[in-house]
Amino acid sequence: MSAASSPVEIAAGGSTIWVGRGTLRDAARLLASPSGRFLLVSPPSAHAAADTVRAALSGRVLLDLALEDGEASKTLAAVDAIADAALSAGLHRDDAFVAVGGGVATDVVGFAAAVLLRGVPWNAVPTTTAGMADAAIGGKTGVNHARGKNLLGAFHPPRSILIDPDCLATLPERDYRAGLVEAFKAAWIGDAALASRAAASLPALLAREPRAVLDLLAGAIRVKAALVSADLRDGGERRLLNFGHTLGHALEAASGFGTLRHGEAVAWGIAAALEISRRRTGLPEEQVRAVRDALSRLGPFPSPERDPGRLAELLVRDKKTTARGLASVLLDSLGRARVDESVSVREWLDAAAIMSLS
Amino acid sequence: MSAASSPVEIAAGGSTIWVGRGTLRDAARLLASPSGRFLLVSPPSAHAAADTVRAALSGRVLLDLALEDGEASKTLAAVDAIADAALSAGLHRDDAFVAVGGGVATDVVGFAAAVLLRGVPWNAVPTTTAGMADAAIGGKTGVNHARGKNLLGAFHPPRSILIDPDCLATLPERDYRAGLVEAFKAAWIGDAALASRAAASLPALLAREPRAVLDLLAGAIRVKAALVSADLRDGGERRLLNFGHTLGHALEAASGFGTLRHGEAVAWGIAAALEISRRRTGLPEEQVRAVRDALSRLGPFPSPERDPGRLAELLVRDKKTTARGLASVLLDSLGRARVDESVSVREWLDAAAIMSLS
Repeated sequence: MSAASSPVEIAAGGSTIWVGRGTLRDAARLLASPSGRFLLVSPPSAHAAADTVRAALSGRVLLDLALEDGEASKTLAAVDAIADAALSAGLHRDDAFVAVGGGVATDVVGFAAAVLLRGVPWNAVPTTTAGMADAAIGGKTGVNHARGKNLLGAFHPPRSILIDPDCLATLPERDYRAGLVEAFKAAWIGDAALASRAAASLPALLAREPRAVLDLLAGAIRVKAALVSADLRDGGERRLLNFGHTLGHALEAASGFGTLRHGEAVAWGIAAALEISRRRTGLPEEQVRAVRDALSRLGPFPSPERDPGRLAELLVRDKKTTARGLASVLLDSLGRARVDESVSVREWLDAAAIMSLS
Repeated sequence: MSAASSPVEIAAGGSTIWVGRGTLRDAARLLASPSGRFLLVSPPSAHAAADTVRAALSGRVLLDLALEDGEASKTLAAVDAIADAALSAGLHRDDAFVAVGGGVATDVVGFAAAVLLRGVPWNAVPTTTAGMADAAIGGKTGVNHARGKNLLGAFHPPRSILIDPDCLATLPERDYRAGLVEAFKAAWIGDAALASRAAASLPALLAREPRAVLDLLAGAIRVKAALVSADLRDGGERRLLNFGHTLGHALEAASGFGTLRHGEAVAWGIAAALEISRRRTGLPEEQVRAVRDALSRLGPFPSPERDPGRLAELLVRDKKTTARGLASVLLDSLGRARVDESVSVREWLDAAAIMSLS
């Protein structure tokens, strides 16, 4: 680890995001708790980062709770267990949670914080590329239900989010790359210059060079921050963040959860969205190729299940589907996206049949 | 039933409350659903009211679900069951729940609506005096946890609330009277004229005469509406509604849930708060007597458990207790209350030892 430089501070929809090396060691200053007391929750996979945060908060940790790793632990039962431990420890409503871990940890802990005593503060310390680029920012929290992912949840933004690329050193390669898809996605929908820079520095990104990683993450976070600050409740601009997700969610579910990483399913969803965009918005062919080329170098990603009957069923059931129809996100050009409610399930199935990542 | 007159419309913190006879028969017009579709949830005790609402919404009910009666069904498991049924029925985020029943039904269904798909609309049709005076207004929803009542929940105001005194015809006497305590409480903290009128019409109220009931409920709702609209998240003025609740919650828990009705525990809590107010705020003696006289005529209420050790433990753990201390509500004079954070647990225990309702 090199010495920490000053972190970048980004405000987004109720959260303050601190991006920089060494932010975890500065947790006592950067994390927020009205009472000064913290409830630390983390899975085994994040033990190194949790150790750093624990040491930084020394003497102020009211509860130090282990969460199981993996999507299977993202359940209402896990929320109940966190509630039980927190109430046993004497939680008051001005104490704050700290979730250290991947998207599962921040989703579950954030949801527990949202519903305990009708809402206590929390902080997020994401330790994966996916978590840093996406999960904790914007306040979406939640758990899965037998009938699908994230079907129970709440909007409850963390007070502070610490993003430290040094946490990524031990992240498995597949998770590292899948998470980068979300960061690139943010660039593609909102920042063409960032997209070009990130594509040019792909070798450095894949080598996890902190400078390249920080540039992409800070840029992706700024895109997301601008969209969620304008639209906390998911009705308008924020939906642009779902680029690749309309079909992506269905591919992820159809393939069986755990088969594809979320970011991998999103990569395929983007491939399909490119097909529809090229036809409907006139997205230039060289931009289609640029996006697909970056996705191909971030991969290769496992092939998803493409059964049209199954995908159709899942698309119709998507929780963002309203009486008006699917809220599809298309790309007008690199850095510019739009929501289109006129794309039919049929078009998505046709795109899924021909999408490719090479 | 007599013919319906025009209902009174009251806006409160995101909800529209329709108060009047016959409002249930007009449910198709008065309840809100962006999609026009409803998910009806009600316990057996509210079957008559549910029948009226069901008939009024004919053809627009996507799900018709029975909930168990009683505080024991106010659990996370019940929320999970509602989620399961709603998702199986094909819930979309622009469909709306309708909870028909007492405070348990509106609390559980409101919480399910708050977390399903991170929030879908809902409507409340309270069928008890307690529910009409208190439970559905202001957006507090939630369930109990092994460690205490309402420890898991969310702020999620119903779109519409229908208040029809004809629903009260079959309510058991004890529930009817306990619920009236909450309505009187609203008058005592916020509307001295209403408090006098209600005290004068106590015989008519106890005879459930619709005109007297409507006057008290509409007045109590206006008091609550003014307080919650100014303070949706429970930090300031809204806390005045907790008059009688600081000790009341502890009495309710110490006596064993189900032993005292909530309103009965609040009546005792008010009796204790009168003792502290008389000493600390100079609440005039004749006003102390007026409040106690009304409570005595609403009762008699069963005696609570007064063990000081147990009460002290529960007071400290109250979810409204912050690092600053208990948020106690005292009465300055009839119609005027204030939050005082300097009242010690010791003072509450002393007041509990001498409080009386006769």
